[in-house]
Amino acid sequence: MNIKITGTGSYIPDTIEKNEAFLEHTFLNTDGSLINSPNDVIIEKFQAITGIAERRYAKPHLNSSDLGFFAAEKAITDAKIDPETIDYIIVAHNFGDIRHNTIQSDMLPGLAVRIKHSLRIKNPKCVAYDILFGCPGWIEGVIQAQGFIKAGMAKRCLVIGTETLSRVVDNYDRDAMIFSDGAGATIIEATEEEGGILSHETASYTYDEAYYLHYGNSNNPDLSKDTRFIKMEGRKIYEFALNHVPQAIKTCIDNSGYDINDVKKIFIHQANEKMDEAILKRLYRLYRTAIPENIMPMSIQKLGNSSVATVPTLFDLVKNNKLENHSLNKGDILIFASVGAGMHINAFAYKY
Amino acid sequence: MNIKITGTGSYIPDTIEKNEAFLEHTFLNTDGSLINSPNDVIIEKFQAITGIAERRYAKPHLNSSDLGFFAAEKAITDAKIDPETIDYIIVAHNFGDIRHNTIQSDMLPGLAVRIKHSLRIKNPKCVAYDILFGCPGWIEGVIQAQGFIKAGMAKRCLVIGTETLSRVVDNYDRDAMIFSDGAGATIIEATEEEGGILSHETASYTYDEAYYLHYGNSNNPDLSKDTRFIKMEGRKIYEFALNHVPQAIKTCIDNSGYDINDVKKIFIHQANEKMDEAILKRLYRLYRTAIPENIMPMSIQKLGNSSVATVPTLFDLVKNNKLENHSLNKGDILIFASVGAGMHINAFAYKY
Repeated sequence: MNIKITGTGSYIPDTIEKNEAFLEHTFLNTDGSLINSPNDVIIEKFQAITGIAERRYAKPHLNSSDLGFFAAEKAITDAKIDPETIDYIIVAHNFGDIRHNTIQSDMLPGLAVRIKHSLRIKNPKCVAYDILFGCPGWIEGVIQAQGFIKAGMAKRCLVIGTETLSRVVDNYDRDAMIFSDGAGATIIEATEEEGGILSHETASYTYDEAYYLHYGNSNNPDLSKDTRFIKMEGRKIYEFALNHVPQAIKTCIDNSGYDINDVKKIFIHQANEKMDEAILKRLYRLYRTAIPENIMPMSIQKLGNSSVATVPTLFDLVKNNKLENHSLNKGDILIFASVGAGMHINAFAYKY
Repeated sequence: MNIKITGTGSYIPDTIEKNEAFLEHTFLNTDGSLINSPNDVIIEKFQAITGIAERRYAKPHLNSSDLGFFAAEKAITDAKIDPETIDYIIVAHNFGDIRHNTIQSDMLPGLAVRIKHSLRIKNPKCVAYDILFGCPGWIEGVIQAQGFIKAGMAKRCLVIGTETLSRVVDNYDRDAMIFSDGAGATIIEATEEEGGILSHETASYTYDEAYYLHYGNSNNPDLSKDTRFIKMEGRKIYEFALNHVPQAIKTCIDNSGYDINDVKKIFIHQANEKMDEAILKRLYRLYRTAIPENIMPMSIQKLGNSSVATVPTLFDLVKNNKLENHSLNKGDILIFASVGAGMHINAFAYKY
């Protein structure tokens, strides 16, 4: 028995928020003082580091579970399966549904329940649950689905990552420009076909790193202390990622039965272009091998960082030949990897 | 290989909120009109149905993850294990950390990360994630842990249920009296010892039932529509539970290799005393058997409904002979069952 991705779908919101939209923002330091640069310089520097030129925001009437539902519908159609045959719906997110212009997370019922309800699936044996695992949530959902299939508890799972980060950003913080909305979904199932998941790796670094990403107050000290926003210690995260992600990917490759030279694509969480490039460089340095061309597809320039949604969305784009210079061939060895709030790191090796 | 619970712990908050505390409340109907009964009559009727005389509230400076941490420490001590040997920390909750007198759910980082951080566990291979699965979350966490052990992904897991429902109740709603705070934790592991988990059963009824429990507005129409509280359609939930829970428990027993007459204790989610008694009655009617004495331990009278925490707390109390007329003997067949938001139902049969 092999465990393969038999269908993919993604939902990329229509609303494009370009970097210019931030020209009128008041960007403050964490101590509340004004950042001593004009906004066009701040934005230019931001784009040079992160690669982000624009990002997507969900329409005001849509919530995270709606985005996840749209992506799920496409994955089900792509896999050509009867939705009533799905054993698990696993939804990764970090903030639940947050309605536009409100601050409460609504997760009662959970987002997996909402999506199953919207999909009009009747089968009560389809278990619908949510996981919170930072940005690596979708990959962890795939790893959990694989576990249930191996344990004989499931044959076919729908794994979704969905997020509306635009609703938890602090408009006075430059990091607001990083975050984006979106959803990606995949069908994972037991199959007799060749290929599938070869190995996986997960780690949770919580001893010193637990609060590198956290919910905290605005940089504007006049805002209520009872309202929190997504906050990150960018430098620490950058160093952490560089120190740990390449080794985690290497362990995953080494356990896959394949070699670094067999790897055709690396789908890595899109948090920051420079960081991803540095991770890639360090990974290949671990093997004393040159980086092949077009090994790492990127969508961050136009889609920003949509947390749990970046990896499944990127895979869906490449699989459907929607990203220039990138295509997949049967038998290709692929790596999926992520790093994020927790700090969690995970990866799986996959034969397409 | 068997999969057993090798340690338990619970945290029962010190602050006792008696029914009399609600005498001064203004109870409104869902349409905002005043309930046409004096409060002492409302409270008496409430107690007659639910069995609840008092409930526990967490101290203002403590959050859900703190409660979970206290319970986890006890379970680790009880199991006599080195916390560094734990492969998974699975935390079930529904609202994250909500600080006293605020309305935002804080789940960044997730509660499993916070608890692992507080436990001072260094091992990055200990994977810490949260699940949202309504009140049946702790049982589902046990079922997931069992899946990972069966799949060879883990040997030892810490499964926690923790909740501070006192922070999401609508003070204008009679249902505010039901909800409570608390946490329960267990160590689940692979062992050569006899006994352990015999069978399990999970179902998610989302087609018509998804929003029976939901986040909704206060019964007081003057409060902001942007602030939501836990809301339930009590009658529908009662009927749903009676129609589905007994059959789910029966399927679980039938798959366990044991008979209803072998069952020594049924640990069922403490949502409502009358409902639990009706479920029990209907379960034994399915087998045309009389209900044995002292089969169903109850703690709801003094602890209220603390969601994911009720079942592990109840088990911890009985295991430690802290509940009158209840004790456990090696080899006893036990049933754990729950029903809640989703609407999810689950159960597992266990040989002690």
